[in-house]
Amino acid sequence: MNYKMVMNIIGKVMVIEAVLLFFPLFVGVIYKEDSLVAFLVPILALLVLGVPLSLIRLNDRTIYAREGFVIVALSWIIMSLFGAIPFVISANIPNYVDALFETVSGFTTTGSSILSDVESLDKSIQFWRLFTHWVGGMGVLVFVLAILPASDSGIMHVFRAEAPGPSVGKLVSKLTFTARILYGIYMVLTVIEIVLLACGGMSLFESVVHTFSTAGTGGFGTRNNSVAGFNSVYVEMVIAVFMLLFSTNFNLFYLILIGNFSKVLRNEELRTYFIIVVVATLTIAVNLLSTGLKFWEAMRYSFFQVSSISSTTGFSSADFNQWPAFSKAVILFLTVVGSMAGSTGGGIKVSRLIILVKSSRKDVKKMLHPRSVITTKFEGQPLERSVERGVRTYFIVWVMIVVLTTLLLSLDYNEVFTNFSATLACIGNVGPGLNAVGPLGNYSIYSPYSKILLSFIMLAGRLEIFPMIILFSSNTWKKG
Amino acid sequence: MNYKMVMNIIGKVMVIEAVLLFFPLFVGVIYKEDSLVAFLVPILALLVLGVPLSLIRLNDRTIYAREGFVIVALSWIIMSLFGAIPFVISANIPNYVDALFETVSGFTTTGSSILSDVESLDKSIQFWRLFTHWVGGMGVLVFVLAILPASDSGIMHVFRAEAPGPSVGKLVSKLTFTARILYGIYMVLTVIEIVLLACGGMSLFESVVHTFSTAGTGGFGTRNNSVAGFNSVYVEMVIAVFMLLFSTNFNLFYLILIGNFSKVLRNEELRTYFIIVVVATLTIAVNLLSTGLKFWEAMRYSFFQVSSISSTTGFSSADFNQWPAFSKAVILFLTVVGSMAGSTGGGIKVSRLIILVKSSRKDVKKMLHPRSVITTKFEGQPLERSVERGVRTYFIVWVMIVVLTTLLLSLDYNEVFTNFSATLACIGNVGPGLNAVGPLGNYSIYSPYSKILLSFIMLAGRLEIFPMIILFSSNTWKKG
Repeated sequence: MNYKMVMNIIGKVMVIEAVLLFFPLFVGVIYKEDSLVAFLVPILALLVLGVPLSLIRLNDRTIYAREGFVIVALSWIIMSLFGAIPFVISANIPNYVDALFETVSGFTTTGSSILSDVESLDKSIQFWRLFTHWVGGMGVLVFVLAILPASDSGIMHVFRAEAPGPSVGKLVSKLTFTARILYGIYMVLTVIEIVLLACGGMSLFESVVHTFSTAGTGGFGTRNNSVAGFNSVYVEMVIAVFMLLFSTNFNLFYLILIGNFSKVLRNEELRTYFIIVVVATLTIAVNLLSTGLKFWEAMRYSFFQVSSISSTTGFSSADFNQWPAFSKAVILFLTVVGSMAGSTGGGIKVSRLIILVKSSRKDVKKMLHPRSVITTKFEGQPLERSVERGVRTYFIVWVMIVVLTTLLLSLDYNEVFTNFSATLACIGNVGPGLNAVGPLGNYSIYSPYSKILLSFIMLAGRLEIFPMIILFSSNTWKKG
Repeated sequence: MNYKMVMNIIGKVMVIEAVLLFFPLFVGVIYKEDSLVAFLVPILALLVLGVPLSLIRLNDRTIYAREGFVIVALSWIIMSLFGAIPFVISANIPNYVDALFETVSGFTTTGSSILSDVESLDKSIQFWRLFTHWVGGMGVLVFVLAILPASDSGIMHVFRAEAPGPSVGKLVSKLTFTARILYGIYMVLTVIEIVLLACGGMSLFESVVHTFSTAGTGGFGTRNNSVAGFNSVYVEMVIAVFMLLFSTNFNLFYLILIGNFSKVLRNEELRTYFIIVVVATLTIAVNLLSTGLKFWEAMRYSFFQVSSISSTTGFSSADFNQWPAFSKAVILFLTVVGSMAGSTGGGIKVSRLIILVKSSRKDVKKMLHPRSVITTKFEGQPLERSVERGVRTYFIVWVMIVVLTTLLLSLDYNEVFTNFSATLACIGNVGPGLNAVGPLGNYSIYSPYSKILLSFIMLAGRLEIFPMIILFSSNTWKKG
């Protein structure tokens, strides 16, 4: 393990977080809130610890896969530990475990909350709470890559460990430039959504923070009943469309920018994601007719919720916990599948679903014709064995973690299916589940022990499981 | 496709079923019930159709994997279609879809029922209902193999398609003898349990049929509140022990018979199964203390239920639907895992769980040390790549079917988690689930459409998924 390199990068991440904390501090100043201390304490702590680390002299800049996983996992944990401090000092969330849960939920863009009343929070705290979504959506280490001087190839391991999806592609030959392009697209889309929301009569503050939440596909909001609180079709539709945009593979936006439209249209994952969203919207809408809604009302609620859940944002415009069983089953399905790889969204990703289905179909064919040679293609290329195996391993471990977490949460005496749905909502970074953790419920029903477990699960979901497992595996820390 | 061979074997299966139907007919005669017609009609139908088929002259006795899957899937469907007739004619279950559901549930040893009152059934019908468990437990095609003249190696494909577990071992060089040994062990254990139950004061009739149910790890009974109806610790303990015996790999009994004890003790699957049962029993017992039970009472209920669910029998000695969340979560976990391979039990099997865990652990190690060579052992042998891949495919397809079935069942407006638990209970061949399909509930809440879907799922579970998928795959019926 190259400890110096690990500490050096973590130091840089801490300095960046200190800088980021100045934004809510300014918000506090603007709104004349008494929040200076709440933000200055973590800023100082981060700088005192982070600056020396980031100045460590590196003779050996090698990073292997192991270092990549450890850097990513530790960075996210440390950011959450410090990011929780303002909530506690400002007394908006006096309990540290609660504040940590909320911060992890923010950075991982989950949007699960332990708060029942978000409208009474300080403005600076509201800003920080939703800003974590924006920061976590694209990933802090991608940001580190974007600002670092062009460096070694080993840095790819860090990128790979943080970026979502079964395989990571570089847009351009240099990874640093790739990271800058991605952040550029992210910023532009963010600005457009802020403008559109503000045009719809939303206050500038709420436009900005809801855009943070949409961009990161997070789901925190400023109203107690989420987006339903605005009671505006325009707002719902702008947010619904942008949730889908931010849950699309950013590489596709780059392809559009350089004019390669045909490659975008041929993209298998995009087509499948499109079909999933359309079919889910229509079937839920039809299912909702039985509750007495008119067709276009049903379409409105259905489209917003499908967009919200499949992008793994978690906003709600209606209490889908009251919807009929089929709609709820579809929502659970979307919770599991999630968004496209290379987006800010979570879930197991549409591309993984495609690969799982194709590789299973291949195996069934193989049973019928054991001696035939069957090749499977994905995105026009023969599917690499290593990618296929990686996806299968990911899925199997994902299922195991879901089962184990449901078991452990059940020690808390909440209903077993509530726990199951909470697990799915947290590992998928969606936020709301069903029953007691539905859109009108919250995660305060859980004990501190369960909140820490769920925080771990949210991180595992955001970082695609392996960095968190590897961090706690004894093999990682062995010499060699 | 060797259609003649397929039809020939299916013909033999039909003749065997006709013979089996004489047993309940005799029971009806003994109890002077008016049930002659109810059984004679299917007997005649089976003979009229089955005898000519079984006499088809075979020039080509080759069976490939494809034929093996088709023979097994069709045999089980046909047996269920005819086996349902007595319920309808006797008017004990007047609706054919209901009767079919009950029969499939019987043959697949699931034990899910649409009946709320089983005590009012005719004795001959009760006998047939529980006899299907005994027949289905070991498998009809294994029986065909046992009585067929020693034949081609191709017959292995049939055996493999029906026998449960990731890989099938022959006990002795000839498959026919292997089948006979397995049936011999099955008969002996059956007789012992009947004697033990009768010694405990149970009537001979109830001893016999409850042994059928235990032996097949089915779960149907003659009392409306299952084994709780006997209110006897002795009966509960005899049944609990025998449920575990019948959910043990029968190869181990053979090893004991030939005196190879050390190989039994070294068996990884047995050890893991033992640990699962012990840990589940203890944790549920401790969890039940919170409901006010004394320790030994808690142990009594816990041990019986763990034995019942992990053997995938489905008897109940208490309404576990009322137990605390953790106990229910453990029960769901046992429902998924199920029994040992090569037993009469269902579930995904302990050996598959072991292989899934080991192969995932290998892949995580591989991520840390990409260039290292890691070999995984199972039962003392290096794990074959094809077995590993097969187990992973099985599990992935299993999860997909569970998700899809839950979605489709939810069209019925029962609660989504009830549907999820019904799906797990049916594909695992357990029987009772939670909520409305819990031990005191039944499957009459579902529409005919859902009952057919669940019948399909029970068959898929019993035949380990692929025969049912392959039967309905267009590839199977293509020339070549």
